[in-house]
Amino acid sequence: MAAAGPASGSGPAAPVLAVDVGGTKLAAAVVEPGGRVVAYDRVATPNGEGLDAEGLWRTLQGLLDKVHADAGFPPLGGVGAGCGGPMTWPAAEVSPLNIPAWRGFPLRERLRARYPGLPVRVHNDAVCVAIGEHWRGAGRGRSNLLGMVVSTGVGGGLILGGRLVDGASGNAGHIGHVVVEPSGPPCECGGHGCLEAIARGPGLVAWARAEGWRQGGQDVTGVELASDARRGHPVAVAAMRRAGHAIGVAIASATHLCDLDVVAIGGGVSQAGALLFDPVEEAFRAHAWMAFARKTQIVPAALGQTAGLIGAAALIVAQDRYWNAGD
Amino acid sequence: MAAAGPASGSGPAAPVLAVDVGGTKLAAAVVEPGGRVVAYDRVATPNGEGLDAEGLWRTLQGLLDKVHADAGFPPLGGVGAGCGGPMTWPAAEVSPLNIPAWRGFPLRERLRARYPGLPVRVHNDAVCVAIGEHWRGAGRGRSNLLGMVVSTGVGGGLILGGRLVDGASGNAGHIGHVVVEPSGPPCECGGHGCLEAIARGPGLVAWARAEGWRQGGQDVTGVELASDARRGHPVAVAAMRRAGHAIGVAIASATHLCDLDVVAIGGGVSQAGALLFDPVEEAFRAHAWMAFARKTQIVPAALGQTAGLIGAAALIVAQDRYWNAGD
Repeated sequence: MAAAGPASGSGPAAPVLAVDVGGTKLAAAVVEPGGRVVAYDRVATPNGEGLDAEGLWRTLQGLLDKVHADAGFPPLGGVGAGCGGPMTWPAAEVSPLNIPAWRGFPLRERLRARYPGLPVRVHNDAVCVAIGEHWRGAGRGRSNLLGMVVSTGVGGGLILGGRLVDGASGNAGHIGHVVVEPSGPPCECGGHGCLEAIARGPGLVAWARAEGWRQGGQDVTGVELASDARRGHPVAVAAMRRAGHAIGVAIASATHLCDLDVVAIGGGVSQAGALLFDPVEEAFRAHAWMAFARKTQIVPAALGQTAGLIGAAALIVAQDRYWNAGD
Repeated sequence: MAAAGPASGSGPAAPVLAVDVGGTKLAAAVVEPGGRVVAYDRVATPNGEGLDAEGLWRTLQGLLDKVHADAGFPPLGGVGAGCGGPMTWPAAEVSPLNIPAWRGFPLRERLRARYPGLPVRVHNDAVCVAIGEHWRGAGRGRSNLLGMVVSTGVGGGLILGGRLVDGASGNAGHIGHVVVEPSGPPCECGGHGCLEAIARGPGLVAWARAEGWRQGGQDVTGVELASDARRGHPVAVAAMRRAGHAIGVAIASATHLCDLDVVAIGGGVSQAGALLFDPVEEAFRAHAWMAFARKTQIVPAALGQTAGLIGAAALIVAQDRYWNAGD
């Protein structure tokens, strides 16, 4: 599949200001229409006592100004943003789970006011990662992709028939809440046995601690657990097997329903490499036997930290494939 | 959403010959461009010893000739067919699980040769039911639908963003192989714990017999089991609860992944009515807590026996929404 260009009904040829709002960091970039990142910066997400919505917005504004300056103040073709959910969509009043300062914060409206006359589009952060991986990463040239982020939560985005799937309310792609064990552990969503309840970093850390791993450590995350697994710590390895098995079951369900070409897995937990991907593959193949399902490829995400920014830019420059909500 | 018409890039204004090839019956109809069935007939699928591929084809030809005659030999705008899977797609060399006489039978090519110059399109029979329910049934006017058929097998089809989802090889919609119990019973697909392994009619009958229901009966099906449930037989009621629970879990997974407006359930087992739909809803709500998921409506299919024929006709007359494979 060729790169998006003006002839295909895609967006402007000018660079895009891309934004990624997460609970850990705020990141921004100027992205060329072809997908190249020409300026990038990030700051830790402010989360001090007494931080209000406007304080966080000012920090984000400062970051956006800086990357625009770093790129030499090019005229912009638009602003694309990924943000942690939930949010209303496409209006993007955002209430990110891990950012208590923003509850119903009108992110799209604020960005529009700050960049008048430009198209401004916001989608879920994991959806933006999936878009990035489809447009310029591990799913490039494939028509049917599930992009997954296995990190503090388990998120995702779905591309079918070469186009982003939004669903009824912009919430398609919640692979983290596919049920992998109906009588499994409670999930923060209110349900139980969701993939996220088992495979998210904090869930794996809690499980590993109960099994004797770094019981005294504070603030350790799934990234450290993945790192210890690579060093051969048996409990950490077992935690990756536990996560991998759940992920493999969820992917089997997803490809039976959606007939996927490729599943790209990123996020901190995926840094365990084969210690995660081998059990993913094993569980997937134990459940996916039909010829069409067995053709699905499960691969590491290719773009790393900038996947979400590149995907956010694609909301503007490849709008024919990734933005279905009008202006 | 308005009905398909020539202005929307849809198909011909002439009636369509619609075909439904299943393991139990062959059915055919002449369907007007608006979806009305003007002639209909069916025959039991021949399955005698020594039946060969050509014998079955001759029976189907006779049925098609009869319904075309019954409708007064109108000029046709095309031929649409649903057929049990698996099949190659869109070439439609079909090998229906329950029709051993056809293995790699070139159904689309044969229909093309018999109706030269007309568009001829074939899709999975459960996909055609989902299309019918979206176009003229329980999902009319909604953009995101999962259509399910709970019968000898558990099949389905997926409409997202108002268009049929085919997936990488035309196999999207296999809701019957979403995993609902990873350590559950073996499935004919080779896996285990699939929805179909638990909720398909023969699986429920086997379970109910083991629990003491009609242990001596031969050839009873899920339809009789549903009927006994309605008469209050406690084992039959428990079997419907078992099926309903599994269906509800699968729907929770499906709507988390695809953000569905509506799920329409048809097929013989669904004739149990509230005895099936109440446990479906209960299990769904035990797993689907996020606001977007709880908005998904689960309803009985509306079109009954002709859903698949109406959907097959839509492959021709509403091709802009339901046929993504070129001619």
